[in-house]
Amino acid sequence: MLKNIDPLLSPDLLMVLRSMGHGDDIAIVDANFPAAAMARRLVRLDGLAATDVTNAILSVMPLDDFVPEAAWRMEVVGDPQAEQPIFDEFRAILARHEGSNFRLASLERFAFYEQAKAAYAIVSTGERRLYGNIILKKGVVRD
Amino acid sequence: MLKNIDPLLSPDLLMVLRSMGHGDDIAIVDANFPAAAMARRLVRLDGLAATDVTNAILSVMPLDDFVPEAAWRMEVVGDPQAEQPIFDEFRAILARHEGSNFRLASLERFAFYEQAKAAYAIVSTGERRLYGNIILKKGVVRD
Amino acid sequence: MLKNIDPLLSPDLLMVLRSMGHGDDIAIVDANFPAAAMARRLVRLDGLAATDVTNAILSVMPLDDFVPEAAWRMEVVGDPQAEQPIFDEFRAILARHEGSNFRLASLERFAFYEQAKAAYAIVSTGERRLYGNIILKKGVVRD
Amino acid sequence: MLKNIDPLLSPDLLMVLRSMGHGDDIAIVDANFPAAAMARRLVRLDGLAATDVTNAILSVMPLDDFVPEAAWRMEVVGDPQAEQPIFDEFRAILARHEGSNFRLASLERFAFYEQAKAAYAIVSTGERRLYGNIILKKGVVRD
Amino acid sequence: MLKNIDPLLSPDLLMVLRSMGHGDDIAIVDANFPAAAMARRLVRLDGLAATDVTNAILSVMPLDDFVPEAAWRMEVVGDPQAEQPIFDEFRAILARHEGSNFRLASLERFAFYEQAKAAYAIVSTGERRLYGNIILKKGVVRD
Amino acid sequence: MLKNIDPLLSPDLLMVLRSMGHGDDIAIVDANFPAAAMARRLVRLDGLAATDVTNAILSVMPLDDFVPEAAWRMEVVGDPQAEQPIFDEFRAILARHEGSNFRLASLERFAFYEQAKAAYAIVSTGERRLYGNIILKKGVVRD
Amino acid sequence: MLKNIDPLLSPDLLMVLRSMGHGDDIAIVDANFPAAAMARRLVRLDGLAATDVTNAILSVMPLDDFVPEAAWRMEVVGDPQAEQPIFDEFRAILARHEGSNFRLASLERFAFYEQAKAAYAIVSTGERRLYGNIILKKGVVRD
Amino acid sequence: MLKNIDPLLSPDLLMVLRSMGHGDDIAIVDANFPAAAMARRLVRLDGLAATDVTNAILSVMPLDDFVPEAAWRMEVVGDPQAEQPIFDEFRAILARHEGSNFRLASLERFAFYEQAKAAYAIVSTGERRLYGNIILKKGVVRD
Amino acid sequence: MLKNIDPLLSPDLLMVLRSMGHGDDIAIVDANFPAAAMARRLVRLDGLAATDVTNAILSVMPLDDFVPEAAWRMEVVGDPQAEQPIFDEFRAILARHEGSNFRLASLERFAFYEQAKAAYAIVSTGERRLYGNIILKKGVVRD
Amino acid sequence: MLKNIDPLLSPDLLMVLRSMGHGDDIAIVDANFPAAAMARRLVRLDGLAATDVTNAILSVMPLDDFVPEAAWRMEVVGDPQAEQPIFDEFRAILARHEGSNFRLASLERFAFYEQAKAAYAIVSTGERRLYGNIILKKGVVRD
Repeated sequence: MLKNIDPLLSPDLLMVLRSMGHGDDIAIVDANFPAAAMARRLVRLDGLAATDVTNAILSVMPLDDFVPEAAWRMEVVGDPQAEQPIFDEFRAILARHEGSNFRLASLERFAFYEQAKAAYAIVSTGERRLYGNIILKKGVVRD
Repeated sequence: MLKNIDPLLSPDLLMVLRSMGHGDDIAIVDANFPAAAMARRLVRLDGLAATDVTNAILSVMPLDDFVPEAAWRMEVVGDPQAEQPIFDEFRAILARHEGSNFRLASLERFAFYEQAKAAYAIVSTGERRLYGNIILKKGVVRD
Repeated sequence: MLKNIDPLLSPDLLMVLRSMGHGDDIAIVDANFPAAAMARRLVRLDGLAATDVTNAILSVMPLDDFVPEAAWRMEVVGDPQAEQPIFDEFRAILARHEGSNFRLASLERFAFYEQAKAAYAIVSTGERRLYGNIILKKGVVRD
Repeated sequence: MLKNIDPLLSPDLLMVLRSMGHGDDIAIVDANFPAAAMARRLVRLDGLAATDVTNAILSVMPLDDFVPEAAWRMEVVGDPQAEQPIFDEFRAILARHEGSNFRLASLERFAFYEQAKAAYAIVSTGERRLYGNIILKKGVVRD
Repeated sequence: MLKNIDPLLSPDLLMVLRSMGHGDDIAIVDANFPAAAMARRLVRLDGLAATDVTNAILSVMPLDDFVPEAAWRMEVVGDPQAEQPIFDEFRAILARHEGSNFRLASLERFAFYEQAKAAYAIVSTGERRLYGNIILKKGVVRD
Repeated sequence: MLKNIDPLLSPDLLMVLRSMGHGDDIAIVDANFPAAAMARRLVRLDGLAATDVTNAILSVMPLDDFVPEAAWRMEVVGDPQAEQPIFDEFRAILARHEGSNFRLASLERFAFYEQAKAAYAIVSTGERRLYGNIILKKGVVRD
Repeated sequence: MLKNIDPLLSPDLLMVLRSMGHGDDIAIVDANFPAAAMARRLVRLDGLAATDVTNAILSVMPLDDFVPEAAWRMEVVGDPQAEQPIFDEFRAILARHEGSNFRLASLERFAFYEQAKAAYAIVSTGERRLYGNIILKKGVVRD
Repeated sequence: MLKNIDPLLSPDLLMVLRSMGHGDDIAIVDANFPAAAMARRLVRLDGLAATDVTNAILSVMPLDDFVPEAAWRMEVVGDPQAEQPIFDEFRAILARHEGSNFRLASLERFAFYEQAKAAYAIVSTGERRLYGNIILKKGVVRD
Repeated sequence: MLKNIDPLLSPDLLMVLRSMGHGDDIAIVDANFPAAAMARRLVRLDGLAATDVTNAILSVMPLDDFVPEAAWRMEVVGDPQAEQPIFDEFRAILARHEGSNFRLASLERFAFYEQAKAAYAIVSTGERRLYGNIILKKGVVRD
Repeated sequence: MLKNIDPLLSPDLLMVLRSMGHGDDIAIVDANFPAAAMARRLVRLDGLAATDVTNAILSVMPLDDFVPEAAWRMEVVGDPQAEQPIFDEFRAILARHEGSNFRLASLERFAFYEQAKAAYAIVSTGERRLYGNIILKKGVVRD
């Protein structure tokens, strides 16, 4: 553990986040997501909620403000407008770290898979709630 | 995740537990323990309580009943008889899986370090409570 | 060995199954199948029957119920409708774990090869019976 | 699989046996033996009986006839003269391959551990019977 | 060395042959063949004749009888019908192990190269005779 | 780069610091120190001052308060009481992060070498000033 | 450190520069650049200015004079003619090492990314200024 | 060093040459050639002349006489007919080992690069003369 | 294969011999010798006679003439003065390469094992004759 | 190659020299020295004179002036006071780089071996002259 750094950020995850640059994506996925099959770099955080991991990541990683969208959830299969309880939790975490206007975009299931496969890393959590997956695009750290 | 197996048992931890044999030790240690420096094999479970990890491990791993002691906690430095709140939690978990007579032995701090270094593996958890460390000796699986 | 876990699930196989996610395939193949040439990840269980290994895998891995088919056998070359004694054994194992309506689909030999090559892992068994091969698609573990 | 070679001899085990020379030991151990912790080279044959594996090994590997003893079982703890059912099975397999006078020697438990640690390889089987462990010393292959 | 197994089958070659399955190819090539540049898996047997190595391989590996051709030699460049002394030796070895009707097919030089590149393994021998190259396709081992 | 984390903490250094536990040492050494020859784990930060690196490390890593000394400088060879300008800089950095009473202990040159060799990691900086070396012992992170 | 060689040239960077040949590119990029995701070979120099690193590299590496352009900066997004303060610093460093007529060419942002991905190596610096990225093409060392 | 073998043939180079077969290429290149970027297998012989290395290689490696050309130099850029002093040295070495009629063919610069990239190995020498590059195609070793 | 170099010297063996220096030992051992268990570096030449391999090695490797003994055979167990047919073959090979006065020394079996374990490499041959083992100490290559 | 750096300093050698610190040794040895058997890190420069390599190394590496001796040659066996022609060449190179008073110390042959084994690296050259070996101790680089 370290001072002033969320303890959910494990040694591997810290190194991954610190190595990422402007425009690199990271996916935080639930316990049923095929993360090992898809990830370029895999970080496991078994037993933790995707929302807690997302909150820990956003405490040190800014999102990209050069592009119209920098955070994506997966759309409910067959009902792209449907809500899930975890979506509002993701929005509240984004608002806390990036401002209340930050928009959580959405991707159809297989488009989400393709973007996750191309991401710099996938963090496999213990999230049990449905649609507990999010992709974040890293922004610029300014002085 | 798998059916009928505690989801806190990560892929690495499951492989370690399945590979261990009669008499091999595993140490479950808190977030401040120097696990990376001491471990022959290191499994990380950041963010989880040592008690939850111990409970998950004992759901699949029996303790050794060929020897008088098969579970050890660390003694409070300077006060070997002192209790800590987590000790009773460890005892309750042992009772649930191994019977109410199972004894939680103790080791002086540096003796605990030596036994952890010789263990088959160390599981580094996110436990924040004081003295949140335990060593378990695997027993025989009978039909 | 571990308590409550079929001992045919070796350390490597347990880790593979635990790492797989929703929609990942695993192939269990007979002793003559070119598994080493085709597998992304190879698990060997020499000397065991494919049916026993399939039964052990299904004791911890649910099959996918989001798609119309989640288990495939290879069709007899030149006679796609033909039965083999092992097919009914596979069906009985599927019924035991997934319900009596679960359908064992079939694939032409070379289509079976292509799907096995793309699978997350291939388990090479000691099965000596003809057409002793099956592919299983992992489902979602629900609470 | 290969013609004229017992199919229980997996690719790894065949390579190990073929690489061993005069005087090298191999241990075949039961499912509870701490093989992963002790082995210089580990071969897993989960699910198989130690007797079947021993029989397969002796079909290709001669025992050492330069020394008075070339096969050892573990003694029953606390009762070195005690018999176990599997001992006679081991003796029958030795007689079949090496002649009816071949002697199965014995080692006290911790002496057995020390010799297993020094062996060229340990084969971890699925043997569930008590004291299902044997060490074999390779002999010379003559024309 | 092992009992009942041709000593020309080295540890690596035994493991390769045991790992191959139905339909996998193995090429046995002469001392001038560009084996290191082409092989997926390379086994070296410097100093040995390709015919002796072929004989040793066929003592444990059956050829494929599901397809019209399962053994190929290279055609003489510029004279596809021409014979070489080693061709009859290859035919005699095939007859000894697979029956007198087994046919040695032929491939034009560059077609032979392409099939060798795709083979499971190439065995580089010390064969000095011209056109001392053969590709064998593994068959099914039946009870 | 990350928010709220000193950018001098490189990906490797962050992972090292996050992996260290209570009582593990880290050495920050100057540009002439034989770091590559001595380090168990080597982190390079060429071009940076040892004082800046020490300051960055102490922004996230607490020092050990269970022991009488947790920070050591090297003594001037032949004059153990002598001061060097960089010593007061080290003391000021320690005071900023650990309180004004925190003591900078000292070690004779070869004792310093021995402790650096046993440290969890050595950070090789571009420090050009004489005696620009310090060893820090990690403390406990409390809530 | 070495005599007569800029100490900012770390062991890894020296080896990379010495291994490069005529026509190979090296990119020196700022602290927000996605270097780890794009680099064939990655050299980290955290905490240093891109201009200081460029100056150190040009003290030992000549630029290519066989081609019309051998140094490129990134164009300001949306304003390809715009200047940034660091551009003149790059020009001054080029003039010092390659002569006052040496031209700093420019590339649109995504063209710069493509050339950086194809470069022999990327050096990730701690540069915080906007557009602090440059690509250099190695020339011939003449007697 | 070995008896009867040119000492310029280093351990790595000897192994590469011995592993090459009929039709494999090897490129010997000058000190400015981008060898590390292009080589499938790289052998370094810093400080040596390309002509000395070529001479040493041809003392053990025959050139291919099945094809019209088996040795290539790079053409002078912009003047394909131009001579360079080193060309006659290459011709003399070829004549010494392969006979006075052996022809040194030529390739345009980028065609030379493509053939070098596809070669079995590139030997990077310390050659300082212009156009000090040659590609050799290995022939058959006859009794 | 290469010109002027015995084709029994495989790529690995050539590299080993070329890397050895004055005073390094190499052991050439028979097919029953426990070479894999003892060797620091293992070279396999299955199927070849130890005498042929020894002859090939001595065609390029001089023996040490700074010490009284530079070639050793193993003594017959229990009869140190006894001769074996292969001993005279070894002596003839030594005489051919090193002169007729070169002495073949002997070592008791376990002393031979100790020297083989310390050797730079062990070459495991297919030698079937009794006591077909020899250790050679490399000498200086003079102009 | 690089500007202002001796081209005999290969990529590996440059990295080794740059990584060494105050007090680390490097041995430059002749073509018969058992370098591969003794070296912690081995750098090969086949074909070059030890004197040229020593000169190149001293162009960038200062010698240690904290200790009475920082350069050692090997003593002639049996005649410790004897001179060899290469000794004066070594002295001249030392004088050119370190001043005319710099002393070339000597070590008995086996003491030289022990110090070479403990050195940070050994550089194996093509030196053919007798006693062409030297050990150098790196000094401090001052501003």
